Amino acid sequence: MNKHDINNMIITDTYSIRYLIGYYTQPGERLLAFIATAADKHYLVLNNLFPRADENDAYSVIYYHDGEAIMEQIAEILTDGVTSIDKVWPSHFLLELMGIKKDLQPVNASYILDDIRAIKSDGEIDIMREASLLNDQVMEKLIDSLTTGKTEAEYAEELARYYKESGHSGFAFEPIVGYGPNGADPHHTTDDSLPNVGDPVVLDIGGMYKGYASDMTRTVFYGEPSEEAMEVYDIVRQANLAGIAAVKPGVPLSSIDLAARKVINDAGYGEYFTHRLGHFIGQEAHEAGDVSQYNDELTKVGQVFSIEPGVYLPGKFGVRIEDLVVVTEDGCEVLNHVTKEPLIIEVN
Amino acid sequence: MNKHDINNMIITDTYSIRYLIGYYTQPGERLLAFIATAADKHYLVLNNLFPRADENDAYSVIYYHDGEAIMEQIAEILTDGVTSIDKVWPSHFLLELMGIKKDLQPVNASYILDDIRAIKSDGEIDIMREASLLNDQVMEKLIDSLTTGKTEAEYAEELARYYKESGHSGFAFEPIVGYGPNGADPHHTTDDSLPNVGDPVVLDIGGMYKGYASDMTRTVFYGEPSEEAMEVYDIVRQANLAGIAAVKPGVPLSSIDLAARKVINDAGYGEYFTHRLGHFIGQEAHEAGDVSQYNDELTKVGQVFSIEPGVYLPGKFGVRIEDLVVVTEDGCEVLNHVTKEPLIIEVN
Repeated sequence: MNKHDINNMIITDTYSIRYLIGYYTQPGERLLAFIATAADKHYLVLNNLFPRADENDAYSVIYYHDGEAIMEQIAEILTDGVTSIDKVWPSHFLLELMGIKKDLQPVNASYILDDIRAIKSDGEIDIMREASLLNDQVMEKLIDSLTTGKTEAEYAEELARYYKESGHSGFAFEPIVGYGPNGADPHHTTDDSLPNVGDPVVLDIGGMYKGYASDMTRTVFYGEPSEEAMEVYDIVRQANLAGIAAVKPGVPLSSIDLAARKVINDAGYGEYFTHRLGHFIGQEAHEAGDVSQYNDELTKVGQVFSIEPGVYLPGKFGVRIEDLVVVTEDGCEVLNHVTKEPLIIEVN
Repeated sequence: MNKHDINNMIITDTYSIRYLIGYYTQPGERLLAFIATAADKHYLVLNNLFPRADENDAYSVIYYHDGEAIMEQIAEILTDGVTSIDKVWPSHFLLELMGIKKDLQPVNASYILDDIRAIKSDGEIDIMREASLLNDQVMEKLIDSLTTGKTEAEYAEELARYYKESGHSGFAFEPIVGYGPNGADPHHTTDDSLPNVGDPVVLDIGGMYKGYASDMTRTVFYGEPSEEAMEVYDIVRQANLAGIAAVKPGVPLSSIDLAARKVINDAGYGEYFTHRLGHFIGQEAHEAGDVSQYNDELTKVGQVFSIEPGVYLPGKFGVRIEDLVVVTEDGCEVLNHVTKEPLIIEVN
């Protein structure tokens, strides 16, 4: 905070609070905040409906009840000067605080903590490595079961079981099983569609394991694909590999995106790669941090993010191939190991 | 907007956008906004990753891609004067807009739209009535199955199946099955606990049906309960009935809370009723609107909210009984019909 000339930080991201002090709850619409001040007094503000928190020398806990004027207490806690407002804090809290404390100088300095969270410790990387190994196994089970040609939603149910059986607490995000044209929508919601022979099938899945998220995508073929589908598959695979090859410490994140994007652009499919190459990941499937052509921040050892190029041909099909990588001293470690060779499911 | 002296409204609540223009998507961390201006020009701002929206005379659609300086475009759209910021908009968007448009006068006027959404149309009430009837049926199935004494988490899985079978798209919220001491935590997370004979069991469940949420709670006994548990049950039931009896149009919401709370206070358990009496409900399980002792706003015909008193004895057990009600011309209609007589599950 001193380095960034921040006098107060209001931290409300539940995962950041857990990261800092180990306390975790999901408060819904109610206010939950960890407040660090330049006066070196720190506070956890907590509705008394939620589990009690440990109190210690580092911070005290302020409990409030529904209907109490808690924002006035918060205004009094804050020291003069600049106050960092958590990027995810719902605006009505900020507007209420601005109304009470007229000299508030609010800024978004969530990046201070986000940058720390982005660099995973060895212990965190161990968990994430294990989580991705388990995700690989779930992916292989899923691919094996595709021969039966169930609906997308039925596979989503099977996945829930696979994750549970392998020690996950649940999904890291709603899984995507996208047949043919559905795979052409990068955020397709799994529905009751059935596959047609030749469909590329986008499988984008991840679980929560020991508090950390995994996330990977494979695209396989439900029976013999068209030449175009196979051509697009190969382009996306080359883009995935080019992206991974570009990862090392101290390079702009944009250069990684552009390395993968160039492969797709050169092949003439640039306009169909409609999203950034990847996102950071950790306690949440999407954490702060963008692997995009517009982000010139430099990579650091210990960051974990996805490399997930895709080509989406509306009304036809989509192909996406996604791995997680950890930035290492001399490049990166790829956390996913399921083959990226084209897989053609035998359809009876 | 004119009536409230608001010159612009930035609406970002996805359910409010659906309510206004029928367009629905969940944009995750990306910006999605419907912007209404006093210039009578309205805009939907949408990342091109998400499904396309209809365009018409009432508004135009502005598509943007990741990395584009969309906030500058938004600043230009806004007319001079007061701008309502959606209460749920993450603060970093507001701070970014304040940085670009120095003369922004931000206020939280979400209540304008929330107050409209809170009053359900006949069509909405028909759906919510049907949803609660189905929720009653799911509750009865759940109660019938309690004889088997499974873990809380196993019942949560069964519930997922019941909701699916009866045409729901999923849970309205994570269901609570709380045995004994677990029921004493109003926000208990369902775990692998098993019941002990005599445990009160808190069952708080709801589904999503045709885009609307249901929500109800019953507390039943797993085998013969203690005298204390039965006494508390009766107090909570009387409080539930007193709350319902207090609902009619034009009364302060606080008076409804206090009518129920008085029963529990008078019985000496006031300090163990730790939350407000109820919340509004509709497209979301928790919508804007509070049935609390601190909210003196007046009820209106067509509002739908929960009446859910509870008594929570830490380390021992909890009892909560919850129904949804619709405010009618001459009182209210109770949407739930599962008996509130004490139910003792026969344990073998």
